[in-house]
Amino acid sequence: MTTSFHDQLAKGWKTSGSMLCVGLDPDPDRYPSQLTDHAAPAYEFCSAIVEATADLVCAFKPQFAHFAAQSAEHQLERLCRRIREDHPDVTLILDAKRGDIGSTATFYAEEAFGRYGAHALTVNPYLGTDAAVPFLARGGVIALCRTSNDGAGELQNLDVGGRPLYLRVAEMVADRWTQHGECGLVTGATAPRELADIRDVAPDLPLLVPGVGAQGGDLEDSVAAGATPDGRGLIMSASRSVLYADAPDGDFVAASRRAAQHLHDQISAAAPTA
Amino acid sequence: MTTSFHDQLAKGWKTSGSMLCVGLDPDPDRYPSQLTDHAAPAYEFCSAIVEATADLVCAFKPQFAHFAAQSAEHQLERLCRRIREDHPDVTLILDAKRGDIGSTATFYAEEAFGRYGAHALTVNPYLGTDAAVPFLARGGVIALCRTSNDGAGELQNLDVGGRPLYLRVAEMVADRWTQHGECGLVTGATAPRELADIRDVAPDLPLLVPGVGAQGGDLEDSVAAGATPDGRGLIMSASRSVLYADAPDGDFVAASRRAAQHLHDQISAAAPTA
Repeated sequence: MTTSFHDQLAKGWKTSGSMLCVGLDPDPDRYPSQLTDHAAPAYEFCSAIVEATADLVCAFKPQFAHFAAQSAEHQLERLCRRIREDHPDVTLILDAKRGDIGSTATFYAEEAFGRYGAHALTVNPYLGTDAAVPFLARGGVIALCRTSNDGAGELQNLDVGGRPLYLRVAEMVADRWTQHGECGLVTGATAPRELADIRDVAPDLPLLVPGVGAQGGDLEDSVAAGATPDGRGLIMSASRSVLYADAPDGDFVAASRRAAQHLHDQISAAAPTA
Repeated sequence: MTTSFHDQLAKGWKTSGSMLCVGLDPDPDRYPSQLTDHAAPAYEFCSAIVEATADLVCAFKPQFAHFAAQSAEHQLERLCRRIREDHPDVTLILDAKRGDIGSTATFYAEEAFGRYGAHALTVNPYLGTDAAVPFLARGGVIALCRTSNDGAGELQNLDVGGRPLYLRVAEMVADRWTQHGECGLVTGATAPRELADIRDVAPDLPLLVPGVGAQGGDLEDSVAAGATPDGRGLIMSASRSVLYADAPDGDFVAASRRAAQHLHDQISAAAPTA
């Protein structure tokens, strides 16, 4: 049985003192040279990053597509099990952006919470509350609200009765999805103003904030806009900027730790102190 | 290299004379008794359905979650390869409802079009056009527009400047996504009126219409509302009603063929003749 998502996250924020999340996006074209001939390079690479950064994070976020594209689901299973066993205070978020009608959502929920043992799963809100219920019955659900891509606003900022669609999504999740289980919202660091509006609508939900690293989002503005008064409330996620940090000496482990430490310090400096 | 989605579909409509699609949703709790001890039951079950119905369909649509929940990606690979090799006129649609920012979408596209060899993939539109481009560069994209679940309207029917959101999605896909590749739209048989509105906005796009079987959608109204004047244009999808058709004599293969034949005949009767 998976620990409650919110309890797990509160534990991680407290023990690590960190709101940093490292996204695990293994890209075969960017593996360090010492791993390219390994039989399970995605697992080995991500495990090395996990060990290098675990004390600096509240969460790890394996990204499903990066494993699926290289037929590495078994490596993803091993990685998730290792995170759960060796780092019991860290929250495991499976980033797979699932979403389907109820009968099928039940199978996706089994994949995420049963097979991979995630505490929380990213879910696309387009199908509405009933399609989210099978996920909420099994574990934490982090709904896409305002994503970090350049074209996110094309649908998400459409005006729906005087409010943008992403705020209607935030309201739907805060008002209805939370009646069925534990939720969070994805809101990109590339749009700090939208992030602030989402925080107003959902004062109590954890916000997963991608885009602070390679995507160039604004870390300080995002933390200021999204942190709760006690200096928590955020899962600030960086992937490529940590995984593929510049390592002039070839030591990618040390380089990833330096990058994570730097982000950790920036987040701490920007957050209110409780 | 994958054949063009639209060319492939036109070939299937012509050679089979059918707009039926059988969805391949293997559910371990519902396998026929003769398969329960098999080492690769999802593959064996779906292969039997494929052989029983291939001449009655324009498309097969394996549903990803059903395989993933039972760690059966390798069986899904084999199934997709078999469909491509043995039934070259049938369109292979991977129903996985993917959707992520561009760099990650590239990996999902490799999974769907490279690894599984799909002609088309279902994609969630919430992230907008830029997130769809990596998919469109590799194969056909069928965007969720008006889904078949009970709560589909919660977001999809929200009023956006006098038009429901699902029509804004249809417009986005028809106007912008089609500039980058070949598209279709998902619109459930459970909402024939919405289906007609979508056909007005997207007169030339194939519509994938789930919900005609177990979900109780209206087949005749949907075909009347969605078929193009030449009696094509639709991919009418049934899954559970074919896969788990009542087989009093235990012959699930014959039962699935009877169910598929019945749907095929109903669709043909409802479609305009060219």
